[in-house]
Amino acid sequence: MADRIVTAEELAQQLRAVSVAEFFEKNRHLLGYENPTKALITIVKEFVDNALDACEEARILPDVKVLVKEISPDRFRVRTEDNGPGIVEEKLALAFGKLLYGSKFHRLKMSRGTQGLGASGSVLYSQLTTGKPVRLVSSTGKDIHEIEVTIDVNKNEPRIVSHKQERNPNKWHGLKIEVETEGRYIEGRQSVLEYLRQTAMCNPYAKIVFEGPNGRVEFERAVKELPPLPKEIKPHPYGVEIGLLRRMLSTTSSKNLLGFLTSEFSRVGRGTALQICKLAKLEPNKKPYDVSHEETERLHKSMQMVKLIGPPTDCLSPLGEKLLEEGLRKETRAEFVVAVTRPPSVYRGNPFQIECALAFGGELTAEGSAQLFRFANKMPLLYHTSDCVTTESVVETDWRRYAFSQSSGQLPQGQLAILIHFASVWVPYTSEGKQAIANYPEIMKEMKLALQEAGRQLAIYVRQKHKMHERQLRKELFEKYIPELAESLEKLTDDKKEKLIAELEKIVKKSGVKSEEDGKTTGNDKESEKTGK
Amino acid sequence: MADRIVTAEELAQQLRAVSVAEFFEKNRHLLGYENPTKALITIVKEFVDNALDACEEARILPDVKVLVKEISPDRFRVRTEDNGPGIVEEKLALAFGKLLYGSKFHRLKMSRGTQGLGASGSVLYSQLTTGKPVRLVSSTGKDIHEIEVTIDVNKNEPRIVSHKQERNPNKWHGLKIEVETEGRYIEGRQSVLEYLRQTAMCNPYAKIVFEGPNGRVEFERAVKELPPLPKEIKPHPYGVEIGLLRRMLSTTSSKNLLGFLTSEFSRVGRGTALQICKLAKLEPNKKPYDVSHEETERLHKSMQMVKLIGPPTDCLSPLGEKLLEEGLRKETRAEFVVAVTRPPSVYRGNPFQIECALAFGGELTAEGSAQLFRFANKMPLLYHTSDCVTTESVVETDWRRYAFSQSSGQLPQGQLAILIHFASVWVPYTSEGKQAIANYPEIMKEMKLALQEAGRQLAIYVRQKHKMHERQLRKELFEKYIPELAESLEKLTDDKKEKLIAELEKIVKKSGVKSEEDGKTTGNDKESEKTGK
Repeated sequence: MADRIVTAEELAQQLRAVSVAEFFEKNRHLLGYENPTKALITIVKEFVDNALDACEEARILPDVKVLVKEISPDRFRVRTEDNGPGIVEEKLALAFGKLLYGSKFHRLKMSRGTQGLGASGSVLYSQLTTGKPVRLVSSTGKDIHEIEVTIDVNKNEPRIVSHKQERNPNKWHGLKIEVETEGRYIEGRQSVLEYLRQTAMCNPYAKIVFEGPNGRVEFERAVKELPPLPKEIKPHPYGVEIGLLRRMLSTTSSKNLLGFLTSEFSRVGRGTALQICKLAKLEPNKKPYDVSHEETERLHKSMQMVKLIGPPTDCLSPLGEKLLEEGLRKETRAEFVVAVTRPPSVYRGNPFQIECALAFGGELTAEGSAQLFRFANKMPLLYHTSDCVTTESVVETDWRRYAFSQSSGQLPQGQLAILIHFASVWVPYTSEGKQAIANYPEIMKEMKLALQEAGRQLAIYVRQKHKMHERQLRKELFEKYIPELAESLEKLTDDKKEKLIAELEKIVKKSGVKSEEDGKTTGNDKESEKTGK
Repeated sequence: MADRIVTAEELAQQLRAVSVAEFFEKNRHLLGYENPTKALITIVKEFVDNALDACEEARILPDVKVLVKEISPDRFRVRTEDNGPGIVEEKLALAFGKLLYGSKFHRLKMSRGTQGLGASGSVLYSQLTTGKPVRLVSSTGKDIHEIEVTIDVNKNEPRIVSHKQERNPNKWHGLKIEVETEGRYIEGRQSVLEYLRQTAMCNPYAKIVFEGPNGRVEFERAVKELPPLPKEIKPHPYGVEIGLLRRMLSTTSSKNLLGFLTSEFSRVGRGTALQICKLAKLEPNKKPYDVSHEETERLHKSMQMVKLIGPPTDCLSPLGEKLLEEGLRKETRAEFVVAVTRPPSVYRGNPFQIECALAFGGELTAEGSAQLFRFANKMPLLYHTSDCVTTESVVETDWRRYAFSQSSGQLPQGQLAILIHFASVWVPYTSEGKQAIANYPEIMKEMKLALQEAGRQLAIYVRQKHKMHERQLRKELFEKYIPELAESLEKLTDDKKEKLIAELEKIVKKSGVKSEEDGKTTGNDKESEKTGK
């Protein structure tokens, strides 16, 4: 059998562009759809994340309803509804029917979504597995629009299947999304319910109602105030790569280098800009477009050499120690919780901030490893635990210093829960499934510092508790001997035995060995405050 | 500080399309560029994979040269050159300057490249980190074209920076690619050199010359024949999802369902097509475009219900047991090698085929775990070993049955090397970095069957060797006593002692306890053949 030889001309005829929708349809595991269980979680996650982002940007306390209904084995209806600002009719189909279409890719600002792939990816997957369009109902407060949309996969464009428009006398605003999809529903550590539970923990200003195959679960709003809205920032010179700098030079509207440097970057004032130009041996009034390739290289080097303060950090929206503490206490019913919010830091020019909280005792189980809750930009991470810098930072922290046992390379043991929150304008996920954070040295360092700080505070409590326990034992022993001692003393001093007992008991109290009823130590939980420290 | 409230209209204005080049520039870790070391390996890999694919399609024995030259710390020039068919001038810039542009996405046929992301991704990364264009020199045998190309990232389109055309009196054909990139060069288990070494092992018909920072290494051609060219196939009904079926129905040129089913799928003849239509309660002469959504669902279900033979497997190009054995023996210098090529099988409608080879003894180290070589479509996999179904299949095989020690959940121990090759029209990589194969049950099963088959063959040799060793010991003991025994027999039989010794030695030989010189057992390596079995 002779093989037919293929010529360069024939090979050339086979060359074609692949639409990004075709690409992700075939590579759906990249978006988190590698199996039916994860697919269902991913769909809920994408819709809920978008709802929370939209509400926060419009400064509305989020009210999110989630329905997951089994309509046949392995097939589900998923519907989410929010009270956000809604999406204007002209963009509604695009936002859900075109991949890589969104508002968050080209800006530096902390948000859950990033690249306009999440919700449209969910529509793509549900369409692939059931052939059904997505149903969208939205209003910005004017008329209500209801459309059904499919994705034209070959073109990566939305196709509107139906469109209804209705009056909106109650001025409802928000968005409802409904898809039918292949999926599998489970409960447990990696599940829709666990995702929502942890989302509620890290977004205590949101109310989330879940109507699942096994009944209804409500996550009530714990606080009535939204965190401040993060601001958008310009890129920091330290984080800009040469290829991007070249592109910025060719597209800027600035007339000269001085203007380019001061207006397109954060933390570059006139003085610094002049210094950069001088280091690069370039005229400050040179036109950006005229900067040659060699000059760009010099400019890039100079930008790394000048001394600059870190990027502004109001682009970040950390939860804060109070919310973290409340979230974790509510969830774990622990007896002691401590939280630490680190000052912002920078990796590759991207501002980021680490928060952590530790919970101890109470209803936490004493068996096995500590529980770990991982969050990135207020979103729970449920998969790929071992590949994530959060886990690595916990493992590399020496918990024996903080009175917990730990085998090398393992999580600590005991009645302990650990929450870590990574907040940044850009989360370096290890894959598009958004389940693990990459191990940058700066991130690792900040996480370990946060854990150590919280660990030290927790250790004081834990040690105090151990000590109190010992004292209590000693006290009980001593009290047992008070009557005997009093009897001996009575003979020596002629004092009344009863008086002596009272005196001895007073001494025991003063010595700090407290009685059972007021014997609680320095807890920060309300119960211990009430009973006195 | 009052937050400015963002309206739905303002949010809508921020919505924009993201080009696929922008997306992968920001998410370069998805393509294998998460650090400078891996970036350098990935670039070499993408160019070499493309070169091998092109040569094989044009039925040319591949001759590939690779240059990696350090030009400043962390900056490298990477150049590859092949003797393939070349790329026609009109497509040259597109093939390297546009992401998701290629010949292999829309067909079902085994090849290394798949989606037109590899080489253009390398150009994107080198441009981002050094700002330099890619230099391409190509000829299809006519004039030689030399162009320099950058990627317009905002548009995902190539931009030709320079173009030279030259006469080609020697009718050279092939392609040279040269980029300048950030990178780090190391040697060891995950390195450019190791990638090329393993590529040579699995592609013994290719000659590869590597000019690296530490000198020149040549991998000679071991065989002078190309494996047969795999054929392109149609999708198999069992592997088609409902969304894709819907799309096929709306774009087919077939006039009716009968024609659609027989011409667009493999293994569907007229009889089967009629059976599918009957099951789905659809008229065979119904126009494909008129099939409603409900009818599509019925059609899809019926397609899964009819009995079909597996897809054709001439779309696969396995290496075969002979090449596998030779490749692994050459690489490991083991004393015994066995290879198994399984018959083709199917996962999700995709034909695939598993091959494995085991090497034992010789220069393999006896310390620690067995060495594992993983391949997908003849490409070595160097990263993410533990996440890969290849590793999982080895770990789940009970090697104690084959005379190797093994702790549970671990690789076997001893003088053993294991090679696994996964060949398919579509490799289910766990991520776009193409370093690990997803764990589909069908794939796992086939891998374990291959390992068991090879394991049984190897065990015969290993046990024989152990037994021979024992017999040798016994024989030596017996021989020691022959003179003494002969003396006793001499007294009893009056035979001459010398004759008796000769008789006894004859018996020892007949009994299968061979002398040291010809004592080797059934090895298949040349040395043992020389010394006689």
